[in-house]
Amino acid sequence: MNEEAAGSLRVLRLSHRPGRDDRMTTHVALTARAFGAEGVILPDSAGQAARTTEDITDRFGGPFAVEQVTDPQRVVRAHDGPVVHLTMYGEPLEEVLSAVRSALETAMGLIVVGGGKVPGAVYDRADWNVAVGNQPHSEIAALAVCLDRLQAGRWADRRWTDADRRIIPQASGKRVIGDGESAEYPED
Amino acid sequence: MNEEAAGSLRVLRLSHRPGRDDRMTTHVALTARAFGAEGVILPDSAGQAARTTEDITDRFGGPFAVEQVTDPQRVVRAHDGPVVHLTMYGEPLEEVLSAVRSALETAMGLIVVGGGKVPGAVYDRADWNVAVGNQPHSEIAALAVCLDRLQAGRWADRRWTDADRRIIPQASGKRVIGDGESAEYPED
Repeated sequence: MNEEAAGSLRVLRLSHRPGRDDRMTTHVALTARAFGAEGVILPDSAGQAARTTEDITDRFGGPFAVEQVTDPQRVVRAHDGPVVHLTMYGEPLEEVLSAVRSALETAMGLIVVGGGKVPGAVYDRADWNVAVGNQPHSEIAALAVCLDRLQAGRWADRRWTDADRRIIPQASGKRVIGDGESAEYPED
Repeated sequence: MNEEAAGSLRVLRLSHRPGRDDRMTTHVALTARAFGAEGVILPDSAGQAARTTEDITDRFGGPFAVEQVTDPQRVVRAHDGPVVHLTMYGEPLEEVLSAVRSALETAMGLIVVGGGKVPGAVYDRADWNVAVGNQPHSEIAALAVCLDRLQAGRWADRRWTDADRRIIPQASGKRVIGDGESAEYPED
């Protein structure tokens, strides 16, 4: 086990269809970053999502690692630590939460997010196949709630380094501090 | 106030670009359903997302209302109850959570999910502009975590009625009961 990485989490997006999945994969990666994962691993085909996530990290801070790999399934097989596969067919998150948290105390976890058909080998390798509700919804929603619960909300306390801009919470309207000045955030 | 609807929540998707937003809006609607909202209100242009959500409700159960409207901003203006607008510029969810929960005890809440540029009038009408982390990520992730926290996880206990099929949680693999028989869930 890599004890230096104990307690940390990486998120792996298992598959990606260029064009069709671009925004979904981008949201998976940004959700991983915002909710406390230390990095995301994307398929080679997800270059646009990788660039967008790196751009957000450059502007809003890190550290957050974006990696691209040719064979995401190989990452699952080779991972030296607990593997959590998010699937609506799995065991309810609440039932496995304390066991997963315990496993993460001594090793780096890998959270696997599907998309399209997931091979049986992934279900077999996973230490936990976890459902965030046994209903069809969204891998983005499942990832967010899973990360939130695993960390008991501690992602909210994270301090970001090397951020060019920072949002100042407002009861109404928008306030962004960027390069020492207040600025409007560009609309998408 | 409509006291019969006290404690219930509806989710409004404020804008939708056909084609580009189809999957995002579908995931917003399915996330609303899975995490305990009583219905979703979509723009007229989001017909595909509405049909997919109704199809999932037919198969996996309800009740869950899918409504389409010509003018989503009018829904915000006319809503007779607390309005929560999800935006990364807003106040941290944790800071407003107990106030929002109190307001929901006596009236139906409307959770507004943006997409594209959100007019200032929505920020002004909202009783709370709420950030699930002041970082750019995903409206789907924000909605899921907001619904989860507002209900303190009670969505997981929901019983679905008129479901043709039901997923039986498994430590590995897939099991779906449909029309009285075990069946594999079709891959997307």
